[in-house]
Amino acid sequence: MKTADQAPIAVLGAGVIGAAWAAFFALAGREVRVADPSPDAQQRLDDMLARARPAMQALGLLAEHPRLPRLCAGIEEAVAGVGAIQEALPEQLELKRRAYRAVEAAAPADALLMSSSSGLMPTLLQEGLAHPQRLLIAHPCNPAYLMPLVELVGGQATSADTMDRAEAFYRTLGKQTVRLQREATGHLVNRLQAALWREAVHLVAGGYATVADVDRAVTEGLGARWTVCGPHAIFHLSGGPRGMEAFLERLGPAVESWWADLGQPTLDADTRAKLIAQMQDAAAGRSTETMAQERDAHMLRVMRLLQGDSPSV
Amino acid sequence: MKTADQAPIAVLGAGVIGAAWAAFFALAGREVRVADPSPDAQQRLDDMLARARPAMQALGLLAEHPRLPRLCAGIEEAVAGVGAIQEALPEQLELKRRAYRAVEAAAPADALLMSSSSGLMPTLLQEGLAHPQRLLIAHPCNPAYLMPLVELVGGQATSADTMDRAEAFYRTLGKQTVRLQREATGHLVNRLQAALWREAVHLVAGGYATVADVDRAVTEGLGARWTVCGPHAIFHLSGGPRGMEAFLERLGPAVESWWADLGQPTLDADTRAKLIAQMQDAAAGRSTETMAQERDAHMLRVMRLLQGDSPSV
Repeated sequence: MKTADQAPIAVLGAGVIGAAWAAFFALAGREVRVADPSPDAQQRLDDMLARARPAMQALGLLAEHPRLPRLCAGIEEAVAGVGAIQEALPEQLELKRRAYRAVEAAAPADALLMSSSSGLMPTLLQEGLAHPQRLLIAHPCNPAYLMPLVELVGGQATSADTMDRAEAFYRTLGKQTVRLQREATGHLVNRLQAALWREAVHLVAGGYATVADVDRAVTEGLGARWTVCGPHAIFHLSGGPRGMEAFLERLGPAVESWWADLGQPTLDADTRAKLIAQMQDAAAGRSTETMAQERDAHMLRVMRLLQGDSPSV
Repeated sequence: MKTADQAPIAVLGAGVIGAAWAAFFALAGREVRVADPSPDAQQRLDDMLARARPAMQALGLLAEHPRLPRLCAGIEEAVAGVGAIQEALPEQLELKRRAYRAVEAAAPADALLMSSSSGLMPTLLQEGLAHPQRLLIAHPCNPAYLMPLVELVGGQATSADTMDRAEAFYRTLGKQTVRLQREATGHLVNRLQAALWREAVHLVAGGYATVADVDRAVTEGLGARWTVCGPHAIFHLSGGPRGMEAFLERLGPAVESWWADLGQPTLDADTRAKLIAQMQDAAAGRSTETMAQERDAHMLRVMRLLQGDSPSV
């Protein structure tokens, strides 16, 4: 039997997330089989490959012999003989469950089954499976071919061996992994992002600052630090030689008073209107397409820089 | 009369913030006078200059003729004839008010008076001043010689002309400025940072993930994006061609449900113990001094990269 490192990889779904996974695995030199019934699946795979190839080349992630993902007639064909299955179907529980039944019918029993779900819990996804111990959530950051982080979340039935194998699988491919020890809606990344946006919305809704200035407080004031120091390490380092302990002694009560003052906005009509109008001002005539291209070009340069560094935490 | 662009600058207080301001202004080529009664003020200025010089050189901010800040006998001597006063005294209201009385007695009436305060509101600082219209808060990111962002916050008595002059003052020196339209505890940067840390603490306190993994979700998953896209722009771009409007239509309710699920931790004994112990694990034997050096070296590289880019928002 092939090990997970050599065996083909199946990707279920060729939407934005699935196509990015397929491009990543294939350009990293792995044999990839894709299942997606939609008529434009091949086109979407081709478009994603064209976008991913220069990015992976710039990051040194392009294999000497990159491959093309192969679109299969169905899930059964895609998963036969694979070592790992990356599921990236729409966030509909019944749709995913139907797909898992096809996986169980055709895939090797020990193939890893990894869902890219950002919104569903792994324990829920495991219900009714014959081999629930090999299922976990492996949630990428977007785009999966560029961003190194994968969040791993096991459900109640996931085995420790599965978690270890999944971690090894992604790390062999150059990914960074974090593990959740308990299931949480939104895992880590989306929860942290939602927490930041909540206060950002409050600052706009309350008339404290414009969308453009709030965003610049992040891009010009906080973003650079957050590429090297996570939120905990920042306060650890501001505590001096005794670190977090000294910080909590000195500033714990102040932090709790800041927290109490944070906003709890709702996305009511007035707030939506402010966000939409001020975001238009901030865009200054640029289309989202233009802004996304600027973002991607910039991100690639930052990712190259970070590759050469070893962040503090 | 000299314009604010040519006139000397006074810095009140040579603590961490004040010394960084003094080093920044002086190495940018401006005449700087510092008032600080503590016996080690000169040493702290010298240490800060030694740290700031290579950073500013690397960023191309070092003047052709950098200067040395001059330590004065008192506030009156420091502020005589200046165009701008950067106050960076400890966060004690009465201490700052005493200093402002000395400023009013000796400084030109039209000199800008900028407090670096992170915790006090400008309207409160204006009480009892003869010229409250020229006072505002200009809050730097740390360290002020490296980080481009300055948050400008006027109080009820601050004139529009003062805000415009302050903005021009910092921009001439190569800084980026954002303006608050209403006073808020913690301005923008510290509020956004507190919001992120609150959820980070919740994830640790609730046993969802370790300090190290939560921090890596930020440094490896979110930080790079936040150097180019602020929290609003991220969702604007994920909305496709119709941007924020489409995002809110499609995902507004989902976002509100994420917000409702975010944590509201307290820094109780159990949480503090977890943060301290797990932060120690994450540090993996490195002292805060070593980690701070790693952070600073890395930040400098990121800042150089960002200088060459024009962020999306």
